[in-house]
Amino acid sequence: MTADQAYQWLEQHSRETVYLEAFSALANWDQATYIPRKGHPHRAQMQATLAKLLHARNTDPRIGEMLARLEGSDLVQNPTSPQAVNVREWRRAYALQTKIPERLAVELAQATSEGQSVWEEARPKNDWEGFKPVLKRVFALTREVAEAIGYTEERYDALLDQYEPGATTRQIEAVFGELRQATVGLLQRLEASPRKPDPSLLHRHFPRVAQEAFAKEVIATLGFDLEAGRLDTVAHPFMLGLGPGDVRLTTRYDEGFFSMALFGTIHEMGHGLYYQGLPSEHYGTPMGTEISLGIHESQSRTWENLVGRSLGFWRYFWPRAQARFEAFQGVGLEPFYAAINTVQPSLIRVEADEVTYNLHIMIRFEVELALLRGELEIDQAPEAWDAKYQEYLGIRSPTLADGVMQDMHWASGLIGYFPTYALGNLYGAQFFAQAERELGDLQELLARGGFATLLEWQREKIHRQGSRYWPRELLRQVTGEDLNPRYLIDYLNRKFGALYGV
Amino acid sequence: MTADQAYQWLEQHSRETVYLEAFSALANWDQATYIPRKGHPHRAQMQATLAKLLHARNTDPRIGEMLARLEGSDLVQNPTSPQAVNVREWRRAYALQTKIPERLAVELAQATSEGQSVWEEARPKNDWEGFKPVLKRVFALTREVAEAIGYTEERYDALLDQYEPGATTRQIEAVFGELRQATVGLLQRLEASPRKPDPSLLHRHFPRVAQEAFAKEVIATLGFDLEAGRLDTVAHPFMLGLGPGDVRLTTRYDEGFFSMALFGTIHEMGHGLYYQGLPSEHYGTPMGTEISLGIHESQSRTWENLVGRSLGFWRYFWPRAQARFEAFQGVGLEPFYAAINTVQPSLIRVEADEVTYNLHIMIRFEVELALLRGELEIDQAPEAWDAKYQEYLGIRSPTLADGVMQDMHWASGLIGYFPTYALGNLYGAQFFAQAERELGDLQELLARGGFATLLEWQREKIHRQGSRYWPRELLRQVTGEDLNPRYLIDYLNRKFGALYGV
Repeated sequence: MTADQAYQWLEQHSRETVYLEAFSALANWDQATYIPRKGHPHRAQMQATLAKLLHARNTDPRIGEMLARLEGSDLVQNPTSPQAVNVREWRRAYALQTKIPERLAVELAQATSEGQSVWEEARPKNDWEGFKPVLKRVFALTREVAEAIGYTEERYDALLDQYEPGATTRQIEAVFGELRQATVGLLQRLEASPRKPDPSLLHRHFPRVAQEAFAKEVIATLGFDLEAGRLDTVAHPFMLGLGPGDVRLTTRYDEGFFSMALFGTIHEMGHGLYYQGLPSEHYGTPMGTEISLGIHESQSRTWENLVGRSLGFWRYFWPRAQARFEAFQGVGLEPFYAAINTVQPSLIRVEADEVTYNLHIMIRFEVELALLRGELEIDQAPEAWDAKYQEYLGIRSPTLADGVMQDMHWASGLIGYFPTYALGNLYGAQFFAQAERELGDLQELLARGGFATLLEWQREKIHRQGSRYWPRELLRQVTGEDLNPRYLIDYLNRKFGALYGV
Repeated sequence: MTADQAYQWLEQHSRETVYLEAFSALANWDQATYIPRKGHPHRAQMQATLAKLLHARNTDPRIGEMLARLEGSDLVQNPTSPQAVNVREWRRAYALQTKIPERLAVELAQATSEGQSVWEEARPKNDWEGFKPVLKRVFALTREVAEAIGYTEERYDALLDQYEPGATTRQIEAVFGELRQATVGLLQRLEASPRKPDPSLLHRHFPRVAQEAFAKEVIATLGFDLEAGRLDTVAHPFMLGLGPGDVRLTTRYDEGFFSMALFGTIHEMGHGLYYQGLPSEHYGTPMGTEISLGIHESQSRTWENLVGRSLGFWRYFWPRAQARFEAFQGVGLEPFYAAINTVQPSLIRVEADEVTYNLHIMIRFEVELALLRGELEIDQAPEAWDAKYQEYLGIRSPTLADGVMQDMHWASGLIGYFPTYALGNLYGAQFFAQAERELGDLQELLARGGFATLLEWQREKIHRQGSRYWPRELLRQVTGEDLNPRYLIDYLNRKFGALYGV
């Protein structure tokens, strides 16, 4: 068999796997949107059957044989050619899938499945004693997984690398350290300022139908193709790309709060734009796939915050919002812009503002890193959590439900995943600064409705790259430098300094 | 390997196949309901990938080996035990899948896929010359399929048996002959009667929201579990069972016509009740599966017509309908009941009334049988079609779109399928007469809202039997006699004779 033939085999195997995975994704979407209540047990059986089939496909020893034929061949000489990129990523995925023993994978799947149910029951009851055993089990198994995957410096690296290829704990600690210091300082200045936005104007009555119509108007204007996607309602919003021409966005509505549906929708749309911008001719192979969760989050947070909560954006959309919502009659653009950018330390990550959000992420990162290292026991996690909230945000949760038990991530086995949320903000600010260098004043561009210009820049620089570069290399290719927290720090200081007059 | 082990292997293989098929069904449902327009090409690729995988599973030679170990073993001694039923039906399916050469299956799949697109384009243009070549090709390939499957008496039997196991052309010709004669006679008497219903009261304004609410009220009252199913809107309604606890009904709304959504919904609900009543402990094996299209249709037509268009049903529901629809203020039950039972020869099968519906089916059956036998050439089909409409229904289509080109079935390869629609009506009437013998006056029962009593009878006698008996045997088990068209004929004569005073 020639290298060409081996490549063709892998390509077809990969494409077919991705088509089959799309069925699982569709079933997930349906589970979150339209499935009848009594359909869940059967759906779980369906998913388990397909997962077993996919696992067998992904660990097929022929993948290893084909890769061995290809590695070192002429076909992969140019490391940024689609062929070389695919071979590199197929190897990465195959290594990961085959390094974890099946016994461990099954135990972890059981523990995390149980973990999610236990979390759902324990959280509203603040039942730490009920929750603790599953958390211990998940962390213990995750340590085993990290050992099985292997690492050079740090156990945590093995986990992180699954979500953010090439990222290291050492680098993240350094970057987060600088960001934390700057953020805590900024937060203190904002809190000390006598000038405060009035967020009450966001808590009037906003009919659901009008919210949905406005959200769709906004995302269509920003460049999301609604003929190649949908927007549905769910309890926990997400974006799900099923394939070329089919991107499912989701949101939720609160008629008493303007921000939830709109900014949530713009956030998911940012993920969706990345997905819609991938090179579809490479669909079914890594070259046509998103490179990392951090890069994904950089796109969603850019559209949600750097664009969607900017003054330029609202200079364009404010008259349109006023036409839709009676509650905004007589409200000026300036107070509205201030209201949507209110900074207020809070306990719940998913409701946090732009300034405090990263502190929530750092707390989780620091706690899970200490747990992984064995510097902290699960029993000590609640106290460590609360102490960090006190230190960074100046508040302390009265309940575990709003403290250490607020996120489902750990119980679901998503350990080593939280940093990607803050990395997304860091990448996003760095990309945005570069776009501004190349495209000129972005606030003026947004105020003119020139969203397509920004999107086309993202398309070319980021989306169409697929998995060509790992995140740090992509950052270097696009911005000419390594990850640099100053972009985010400067952006936050500038924007919120101006808003709060500090 | 013991027979027990062989059985367990087949059972697991069967269940897993059914779980995977459920993904395809979900994707079909999504294609008809919520998929974005641009998602179709990708969805076709997904479906093709899964179809290929399922074909490989269904023709896995190990199935044949396992069946050989089981056939004649103690495990299948009792022919109506779940084990024996499953082995019988696994053999039937495996034989069918392996008898058709892959080359032929692929050619037919291509021809019918193309056939559907060509039909969609050609029908509105009455483009017979454009449609004819694909129809010729599909019929030629279907004859090859019938030859590959094999038959004793008649080529058509091989096709029919796929949809209605055990049914034969000879039997259908006899039964249809009696039904046709009786129907044509009844129709002539009705047309000669001076007493006519006034259907215009069904063509007032019925708001979509009220129609949907009423349709859901009706099906919930009849016994459909809306926590284990849904009702959505599509262009061409269907019922799709995804698995236990998950049945998708669909309908369409016409605000200017009361009957379309409601009776369409009750029809699909009849299919759904059959599906919800299958023995879920046997899900994933034939024992937990519907036995035939004819039996399926017997359940949908029973609820749509024998129940839904009966006077007893409306004695219960008429005050409820009047409460929902302003258009029914001041309308009496009797004229309404007459209106929904208007008999009027028409060109379009899917809009036909209870009396003329079976004549539409017979025309298709007679034409496709003559085509299969080679007694008729495709070129002669339009004239044969029109002549039969003239003879049986006294009307002639001015266009091919409303004549021979009105159904997509032939272009999609559904040949040998039409008879099941009329068989459904025949089975339904025979079952209903038996239910009346056992339960007493059904019109009184329905007028009291005793729908659960009828449903429980169906559950026990029909639904819970799954694939235990082939249709004719099921009929014998339930009613004590073979298929007898007198039940349907007597029902139609009685009901419409009374309505039209003839």
